Amino acid sequence: MGGDGHPYAPADLHLPGFVPLQLSQGQILAPYLGTSVFVVLAVWLVSGRCGRLSKTDRLLMCQWAFTGLTHIMIEGPFVFTPDFFKKENPNFFDEVWKEYSKGDSRYVARDAATVTVEGITAVLEGPASLLAVYAIASRKSFSHILQFAVCLGQLYGCLVYFIAAYLDGFNFWVGPFYFWAYFIGANSFWIWIPTLIAIRSWKKICATFQAEKMANAE
Amino acid sequence: MGGDGHPYAPADLHLPGFVPLQLSQGQILAPYLGTSVFVVLAVWLVSGRCGRLSKTDRLLMCQWAFTGLTHIMIEGPFVFTPDFFKKENPNFFDEVWKEYSKGDSRYVARDAATVTVEGITAVLEGPASLLAVYAIASRKSFSHILQFAVCLGQLYGCLVYFIAAYLDGFNFWVGPFYFWAYFIGANSFWIWIPTLIAIRSWKKICATFQAEKMANAE
Repeated sequence: MGGDGHPYAPADLHLPGFVPLQLSQGQILAPYLGTSVFVVLAVWLVSGRCGRLSKTDRLLMCQWAFTGLTHIMIEGPFVFTPDFFKKENPNFFDEVWKEYSKGDSRYVARDAATVTVEGITAVLEGPASLLAVYAIASRKSFSHILQFAVCLGQLYGCLVYFIAAYLDGFNFWVGPFYFWAYFIGANSFWIWIPTLIAIRSWKKICATFQAEKMANAE
Repeated sequence: MGGDGHPYAPADLHLPGFVPLQLSQGQILAPYLGTSVFVVLAVWLVSGRCGRLSKTDRLLMCQWAFTGLTHIMIEGPFVFTPDFFKKENPNFFDEVWKEYSKGDSRYVARDAATVTVEGITAVLEGPASLLAVYAIASRKSFSHILQFAVCLGQLYGCLVYFIAAYLDGFNFWVGPFYFWAYFIGANSFWIWIPTLIAIRSWKKICATFQAEKMANAE
C-alpha cells in the first residue's frame, strides 16, 4: 500500500484525495468483456445479412467496431476525467482506470505522454475505427487506406507508450501479474492485430497499383 | 540565466555540468540551411536526368531527401547522446540541440515524451524517408503508401510533441522569439508539408481503387 492510501507503484506516488476501488477485478472485466462479445456477435450477424462480404471483411468489421468503441467509450472518459481517482461516487469507467493503473500508475498520475496518446486514440482513432466498419461494409475506395492509417496510429501510440515507460523508469506496476496481464497483455492486442491489418492493407494497395501499371502497359 | 548557468526556461530546471553554447545562432543555422539547399539542389538536378519524372515527383524526392537526412543526421545524434549538453568538446550536433533547447527546454531536460518521439522519427521515419526517394524515382507500387505512412508518423509525432508540451505546463521557451521561431516555426514544416503529401497520396490510392472497381464492373 503506497502513500495517500493508494495501491499503486511506486509507493512514493503522491495522490491526494484518492478514493479506493469499490469494484472487484471481475466486476470490471465482466461487463467490458460481455459488452465486447455482444458487439462482436452483433456486427458478425448483421454483416452476414449484407451479402457479398467475405468472412475476412466481416471479421475486420467486428474488430473495428470493438476497437472503436473501446477507444471512445473506455479511453475517452479517462482522457476527459482528470480527477477520476478522487471522485466520491466513481462510475464504472473511473473504476476501470483505477484498476488498470495497478499495471501502469502513469494513468492515475496523469503522465503527459500517456494522456497525450490516449487523447489521440480516443478523439481521432476511435471515430476513424467506426468509419472503417462503414467503409468495409459499403466497399468504399478509401477502405484500405483508412484501415492502414488507423493501424499505424495504434502502432505509433503503442510505441510511444512503451518507450516512454522505459525512459521514465519502468516501475509503474504493482507486481509481475499486473505487469504481464495489464501492461503487456492488454496492450499486446493493439500491436499484433494492427500489424496484421496494416500488412494486409499495404499489400492490397500495392497489388492495386501493380494491376493499374500492368493495365496501362498493355 | 537559469540555475547551473544555463540559459533555458524554466529557470529552476536543474542541469548539472551544463557547458555553455560556443556557436552563435548563425554558425548553427548556416551549415544546416546550406547543406539542406545543397541536398535539395543535388536531388533536383539528378532527378531531372532520370527522365519521365514529373516536377511534382522531383519536388517530393527533394523533400524526402531533406527530411530523411534531417531525421537521421540532426535528430539521430540528439536521441543517442543523452549527455550532449555537458560535453566539454561539443560537436556541431550537440550545439544544434543546445541552441534549439532555447525554444523547448524539454530537449536538454531529456523529457521522455520528446526523446520517444525523436527516437521513432530518427530510427524509423528517417530511413523510410530515404526509401521514399528511391521508391518515387523507380516508380515502385508501394511509393504512395510508404509516403503516406511516413507523413502520418510525422504528424502523429508533432501531435504528441505539442499536446504533451501543453499538458506539461507550456513554459519551455526563453521568450516569444524562441517560441515562435523554434517551437512553432521550425516544427510547422513537419505539419503542413506531411499534411499536403498525405492528402495527395490518400487521393491517389482512392483513385486507383476506384479505377480498378470501374474496370471490374465493365
